[in-house]
Amino acid sequence: MSLEFELIQEFFQRDTVDEGLSLGIGDDAAIVNIPAGAQLVVTTDTMVEGAHFFKTDSAEDIGYKSLAVNLSDLAAMGATPKWFTLSLSIPGVDKAWLAPFTKGLFSLADKHAVNLIGGDTTKGPLSICIQALGVVSTGQAITRSNAVTADDIFVTGTLGDAALGLLSLQSKVDLPRDVARVCEARLHHPTPRVEVGMALQNDAHAMIDCSDGFAADLGHLLSSSDKTAEIWLDKIPMSSSVDSWMAIHHRWEVPLAGGDDYELIFTSPPEKRKSIEALSIALSCPFSRVGKITQSDVTQYYLPDGQVLDLKQKGYSHF
Amino acid sequence: MSLEFELIQEFFQRDTVDEGLSLGIGDDAAIVNIPAGAQLVVTTDTMVEGAHFFKTDSAEDIGYKSLAVNLSDLAAMGATPKWFTLSLSIPGVDKAWLAPFTKGLFSLADKHAVNLIGGDTTKGPLSICIQALGVVSTGQAITRSNAVTADDIFVTGTLGDAALGLLSLQSKVDLPRDVARVCEARLHHPTPRVEVGMALQNDAHAMIDCSDGFAADLGHLLSSSDKTAEIWLDKIPMSSSVDSWMAIHHRWEVPLAGGDDYELIFTSPPEKRKSIEALSIALSCPFSRVGKITQSDVTQYYLPDGQVLDLKQKGYSHF
Repeated sequence: MSLEFELIQEFFQRDTVDEGLSLGIGDDAAIVNIPAGAQLVVTTDTMVEGAHFFKTDSAEDIGYKSLAVNLSDLAAMGATPKWFTLSLSIPGVDKAWLAPFTKGLFSLADKHAVNLIGGDTTKGPLSICIQALGVVSTGQAITRSNAVTADDIFVTGTLGDAALGLLSLQSKVDLPRDVARVCEARLHHPTPRVEVGMALQNDAHAMIDCSDGFAADLGHLLSSSDKTAEIWLDKIPMSSSVDSWMAIHHRWEVPLAGGDDYELIFTSPPEKRKSIEALSIALSCPFSRVGKITQSDVTQYYLPDGQVLDLKQKGYSHF
Repeated sequence: MSLEFELIQEFFQRDTVDEGLSLGIGDDAAIVNIPAGAQLVVTTDTMVEGAHFFKTDSAEDIGYKSLAVNLSDLAAMGATPKWFTLSLSIPGVDKAWLAPFTKGLFSLADKHAVNLIGGDTTKGPLSICIQALGVVSTGQAITRSNAVTADDIFVTGTLGDAALGLLSLQSKVDLPRDVARVCEARLHHPTPRVEVGMALQNDAHAMIDCSDGFAADLGHLLSSSDKTAEIWLDKIPMSSSVDSWMAIHHRWEVPLAGGDDYELIFTSPPEKRKSIEALSIALSCPFSRVGKITQSDVTQYYLPDGQVLDLKQKGYSHF
């Protein structure tokens, strides 16, 4: 038996109950069944050492986050995640790394009943490429491009924790140890808003996940929808960690331009506010109404004192 | 506009006519429609510099081959290729490399009407991860595990050219220049047997593509089917290049254990021979009957003189 087959058997092949899966790992390709009346939703995201994580990050976090960022993309479409494939490039066979890596990966997969159906392993610089597949009722996906003038703009959870965690890891800010720990955990262990995305199908007009930073991702949604927005910075949701830090430093790029929050930004018509509020309670996920869609020349970010913020650094570029 | 978006627009976003594609590049995920009565077939394969290609290989070849190996996996299931995603890790933005890379990639995609529906680009060591999606009529996929005792074993095309090309590139063999060129072209520019795979749906019992080497891949098919085989080496199809070289060197590992041929190995019942022959003519693809499925203790490779070959080096291991 080749080493690659041995690795698959030891770390990746698992017993699963999945009625949609017709043929899993072990052939040239996998075969799955898409339910009648549903469309297939497809996304892919790669994490490369140096660009997306550090050599010193825990293998368990890397495994978890590799899948989390993909599930977040499916969530942003309102899709139900179903399956994923994994292409793993590793410098060599290190079972002491593979064991926690797969532990992190499958802890999240199991939480959402998402099954690994294929992949490959290659000797090379550490890199994890995942493709995730989901399903959505035909015509019900929530895209970026359907925001309507006067829509409310909501964001889930809190913004900026991951950015502050990264700055702390880079020794660019000095945080109390417990605050640093909380922010770094958000960076390494983001929560993809899977249930929220699925539940918004009837209420949201447009949606995107917040991976490159709030301002950049909202910008994508607005340009796809050919709209502008008015954002009220006093409504931007921040954790107590970010809030206390902002009270001293006032660096709006942390909550607005820091990436890796993996919250959802969505728009919905004002008449849906009751329904949105009920959903927030039912799913135990805070939704903050941070602005509204406009049809103007420019998107404005209003400071608490009513002044307009000049937002230069809009997001994270991969190059 | 970020550089990543600029790259997508310049190199990857194209106008396509695809009734199955509901939403392509540009949102958090793509949305596609799976025809009624069909199943989705999913595969992924990564090519990493150093492991699968050399820095000096042409970008056009790398683009072409990255997709070819994935289409070959779909072909081996009898599936019709439909869509793919691309995760590209590149050391930096080099348009002089990206232009020929995408040219090679899309030349093959266009040939089979396969559309790129998503992906990402990352700064990192050169690596290309493709996931390909295809469709197959429900229950009609050809797996590895369904070979039946007394089935004929066929292989398409010729074996060993790519292996000889690699040995030549590594200066491990000395070939006439025109022979070297032909063999290296097979290594860099394999032909995925897409139409053949699709056409075999009614005739083949089991199928696999030949990527790790004939003996290794046949071995996978046999172990999945819980069968053995008898292989007649005088029937192994070889190009004139490999044939002349073998006449002097008699190194059976070249046609049997060299990888990268991307031919199909399939089994079918003897009563299907006429149908198989007609298919070979209709598709202008040579099929060679190289042995038969047995239910024995061991798979035997018979030399032309009737002796049994001792085949040590069965395939290519990634580690």
